[in-house]
Amino acid sequence: MPKVLIIMGSKSDFSVAEKAVEIFKKFNIENEVVVASAHRTPKRVEDLVKGADAEIFIAIAGLSAALPGAVAAATTKPVIGVPVSGKINLDALLSVVQMPPGIPVAAVGLDRGDNAAILAVQMLSISNVDLRSKLADYREEMAAKVVEDSEEVHSRV
Amino acid sequence: MPKVLIIMGSKSDFSVAEKAVEIFKKFNIENEVVVASAHRTPKRVEDLVKGADAEIFIAIAGLSAALPGAVAAATTKPVIGVPVSGKINLDALLSVVQMPPGIPVAAVGLDRGDNAAILAVQMLSISNVDLRSKLADYREEMAAKVVEDSEEVHSRV
Amino acid sequence: MPKVLIIMGSKSDFSVAEKAVEIFKKFNIENEVVVASAHRTPKRVEDLVKGADAEIFIAIAGLSAALPGAVAAATTKPVIGVPVSGKINLDALLSVVQMPPGIPVAAVGLDRGDNAAILAVQMLSISNVDLRSKLADYREEMAAKVVEDSEEVHSRV
Amino acid sequence: MPKVLIIMGSKSDFSVAEKAVEIFKKFNIENEVVVASAHRTPKRVEDLVKGADAEIFIAIAGLSAALPGAVAAATTKPVIGVPVSGKINLDALLSVVQMPPGIPVAAVGLDRGDNAAILAVQMLSISNVDLRSKLADYREEMAAKVVEDSEEVHSRV
Amino acid sequence: MPKVLIIMGSKSDFSVAEKAVEIFKKFNIENEVVVASAHRTPKRVEDLVKGADAEIFIAIAGLSAALPGAVAAATTKPVIGVPVSGKINLDALLSVVQMPPGIPVAAVGLDRGDNAAILAVQMLSISNVDLRSKLADYREEMAAKVVEDSEEVHSRV
Amino acid sequence: MPKVLIIMGSKSDFSVAEKAVEIFKKFNIENEVVVASAHRTPKRVEDLVKGADAEIFIAIAGLSAALPGAVAAATTKPVIGVPVSGKINLDALLSVVQMPPGIPVAAVGLDRGDNAAILAVQMLSISNVDLRSKLADYREEMAAKVVEDSEEVHSRV
Amino acid sequence: MPKVLIIMGSKSDFSVAEKAVEIFKKFNIENEVVVASAHRTPKRVEDLVKGADAEIFIAIAGLSAALPGAVAAATTKPVIGVPVSGKINLDALLSVVQMPPGIPVAAVGLDRGDNAAILAVQMLSISNVDLRSKLADYREEMAAKVVEDSEEVHSRV
Amino acid sequence: MPKVLIIMGSKSDFSVAEKAVEIFKKFNIENEVVVASAHRTPKRVEDLVKGADAEIFIAIAGLSAALPGAVAAATTKPVIGVPVSGKINLDALLSVVQMPPGIPVAAVGLDRGDNAAILAVQMLSISNVDLRSKLADYREEMAAKVVEDSEEVHSRV
Repeated sequence: MPKVLIIMGSKSDFSVAEKAVEIFKKFNIENEVVVASAHRTPKRVEDLVKGADAEIFIAIAGLSAALPGAVAAATTKPVIGVPVSGKINLDALLSVVQMPPGIPVAAVGLDRGDNAAILAVQMLSISNVDLRSKLADYREEMAAKVVEDSEEVHSRV
Repeated sequence: MPKVLIIMGSKSDFSVAEKAVEIFKKFNIENEVVVASAHRTPKRVEDLVKGADAEIFIAIAGLSAALPGAVAAATTKPVIGVPVSGKINLDALLSVVQMPPGIPVAAVGLDRGDNAAILAVQMLSISNVDLRSKLADYREEMAAKVVEDSEEVHSRV
Repeated sequence: MPKVLIIMGSKSDFSVAEKAVEIFKKFNIENEVVVASAHRTPKRVEDLVKGADAEIFIAIAGLSAALPGAVAAATTKPVIGVPVSGKINLDALLSVVQMPPGIPVAAVGLDRGDNAAILAVQMLSISNVDLRSKLADYREEMAAKVVEDSEEVHSRV
Repeated sequence: MPKVLIIMGSKSDFSVAEKAVEIFKKFNIENEVVVASAHRTPKRVEDLVKGADAEIFIAIAGLSAALPGAVAAATTKPVIGVPVSGKINLDALLSVVQMPPGIPVAAVGLDRGDNAAILAVQMLSISNVDLRSKLADYREEMAAKVVEDSEEVHSRV
Repeated sequence: MPKVLIIMGSKSDFSVAEKAVEIFKKFNIENEVVVASAHRTPKRVEDLVKGADAEIFIAIAGLSAALPGAVAAATTKPVIGVPVSGKINLDALLSVVQMPPGIPVAAVGLDRGDNAAILAVQMLSISNVDLRSKLADYREEMAAKVVEDSEEVHSRV
Repeated sequence: MPKVLIIMGSKSDFSVAEKAVEIFKKFNIENEVVVASAHRTPKRVEDLVKGADAEIFIAIAGLSAALPGAVAAATTKPVIGVPVSGKINLDALLSVVQMPPGIPVAAVGLDRGDNAAILAVQMLSISNVDLRSKLADYREEMAAKVVEDSEEVHSRV
Repeated sequence: MPKVLIIMGSKSDFSVAEKAVEIFKKFNIENEVVVASAHRTPKRVEDLVKGADAEIFIAIAGLSAALPGAVAAATTKPVIGVPVSGKINLDALLSVVQMPPGIPVAAVGLDRGDNAAILAVQMLSISNVDLRSKLADYREEMAAKVVEDSEEVHSRV
Repeated sequence: MPKVLIIMGSKSDFSVAEKAVEIFKKFNIENEVVVASAHRTPKRVEDLVKGADAEIFIAIAGLSAALPGAVAAATTKPVIGVPVSGKINLDALLSVVQMPPGIPVAAVGLDRGDNAAILAVQMLSISNVDLRSKLADYREEMAAKVVEDSEEVHSRV
């Protein structure tokens, strides 16, 4: 089973990383969470990325969120970037998504560690029929939950 | 060789799609460009996505850019969203990236059709050693171009 | 009496929907509240809209709020969109209002479920003299409340 | 046939109003275009609105676009607001959409005179079977144009 | 002594109006606080403004804050506009400041009822030597407070 | 007749100052235009303001537009601030309007030299019956122009 | 040992100044904290800056944060500006960073008193080998803390 | 004489770098301009920075402008960051200024290569009396230019 490396720019981003870990548990994807800062430990970021046998990287960071780009600069494997909310929000979001030509980062929404993980599963499912089927099940569960929520709301009005 | 389906929300997004096509030519990835609108032709979007044998979708749209999300809603395969610039810019960018939990879109930067394609190649390379090697070559070409540009600039000063 | 269908993108939007329901009670307009997600349950959105005998739709959603546009894509009846507040706010607001040519959504303000309902009553009143008269009364009540508030404030200073 | 009154805040908004007029011609809806400013001619706005036998008002304005709100304050009929683009864009857009509780404006996108008109037709179609059928035809024309555009693009690549 | 009329768009803006009242007490300027809404009670706004013997108007409003502009449309006397904070902030601020040519509003900062009042005193002081002297005293008090604060901070470090 | 001093932060702001000069000519208000920079010539700003026999100051500046605040810091007379448009626009606008408590600036819209001048005339008219009458005439001219524009537009459709 | 003068625009900015003081303690840099307002006490700002034997100035301010620019206008020594967070945030940030040509301010992030101090230490280290070595140590401490945090997080998952 | 290394993220940033070079010529500061991309050539950035005998670095970049932060991560010497304008502007500006605690970048305004260079000169002048005197002269030239501009404008009105 392939592995995903989740890199947080700071320990304080843990609640966002946790959402990814939870998804990976559900899909039985081996993963690891580390802290490494593009600004305080650039060499560590490079070493972790180049040394990892991961197929995909998830990079989580706030403020002038350079981490996803730094990871993307160190590998040609897919990198998913998660901007973390703060006092401005557009800072992290724009830093993650507005990458220059040649070095893409796959940006997901503010604090969306869960979607980063699902996107990783989707990428892995390109060559994994079993994951495709699990993704279809997950989609159905979500849809069923919507119907259930609708009934609950209906009874409230 | 796997296939990527590029869906533009409007004919006017063609210059952005072209950048993706150019990258795919370079990497010899079969791809197709179609126009389909999430708002004017929702059924067509659904049919194209469900009927496609593509492994990855690239959706290109401006304004309240719903197309990437509509494509993502119709498949569990990876969807890459490209916001198209206009009078506000933040409208398309936020519409593409701020997806709700459960249905991710991999957002790239404003008008970055090129990066959407490179990201697609990176996803395909997870199970394709040949593409990995081509991506490494491409990265080296870019780096060489930077050095060349630096020399040109140096001679100008 | 005509009917309005209120569709929320998520159960968590209920407090916004409630404001609409309260207005409809006041004007004695039959209405129904359901949950349906443009991204998690696109088919359900389409089926609900196409199957409804409602004259007007109110769609309530946050983040990259695609729901109002998805509803508008499935009907030629008027669709009122309510952006829901969150960490960015401009994301939902711009997603709802910046619709492409041909498929309008009638956007109201952030979290303004009440105004969505009043707008729906105004639309219905085009062919309903009784509703016109009720709207005039409501306007007068509001005006009287302003005068009352003014007196209360005056006595405070 | 019902009538729509199109009020522009300034002569310079004419290109936006024209898009609405074109749509109304297509749907054979009687309409009239006038200039009236919420700030320079508030009495004129009030008189035009109160004296009009229109069923719906379209108000077009830029900057701190108070016109749609001023029209809405003078009538309980539906008012559609069109923000006009300028140096900031968010000024007009937020002024139109962020109406206080009780007095809604149906906001459409920046410079979207066309969508304002289509929304008006949708409102009128609530009690007009003929307009419903024309709207369905219009939707089909748009969809056919998308397919045609797709073929043109396809041949270009 | 001249009089200033303070108009709030809603009772909920009272804390902002209070800051103005406090300043006027200090400068012994007769003033009155009323509630009147540009959207819910446009005639009341017009009547209050045209009937007032005030020399200056202060208009306080949030969201698509049309009140300052509506007051300015009803008088050629100076109008000071105070945007009130909310979920977006730029909505009220831009609505107040971005007035069209010909009808100015003197915008002060978000929630700055105090500055609105000081600005009114400055306007009145053009033809009132006594107020000029009081303004100079007030400026000196503020400066002294800064020095005092500096000493307090100095002792803390 | 009282005098207004117009201070531009840079020679490049001249087109904005010109709009003010034109209004003052119409109202026969003596005025003078100077260049003085809050950052490059702070002493000059202070000297000009303290030495002027002007009743009102208009300060015009772009970028981190400190000039209006610097003028306000040097006088207790009314200061009108005009933000000048550039690459960001919100920089100048927010710098002018978001003044701290105690030192107000009367902000007008982006590049609105004309409104700055009209606001100045309104302030001067507090103690000048003749100016009040001219302002009323000017307002009527503007209103007449709106009616004229309306007729021109009407004939075009 | 050189000295840094920390000027806060208001006593309420103290928590941001404190972060700078803490860094200076660590690096044994003599410093002083004062309150002085560009708008309420412009002469005091000028006198403090011109009279100081400091090598570097740190100016901390919110809203239309003119203080850093005012300090820079009074000296040719380096000035570091710290925008302070509030209801809008972009107001202070843009006011600090968007300085006109000729008078730079070295802007650091919102509320980043700590980074202002580290930047000051870096400037002083240009001619101080001992500080260079301390900065290298500090960088290593930070890097070690990242590794430690990573281990803590790892054990949590 | 100390040296400054100017690093541009892309050849297209040359017009911004040129403004810095021009200032350095005026102050006779040895400098060098190179192209190096944080994302396309991270190793080159690191090598250039670590290998340089420069006292100060100027990093110029647009979009998700990671270059200034990447340079700052590779040195403890002062780094000045210049955001380059584009379609969004806030992306580069926020990426440069919103650095995390511990690794400051001295941000200057959008496209302000000139101010970056002046700030560098100011830093170097801490230990260079001759540069201090040149900076004072430069300030006086600027002030004289303002007076000259004022006279030219005065004659135009």
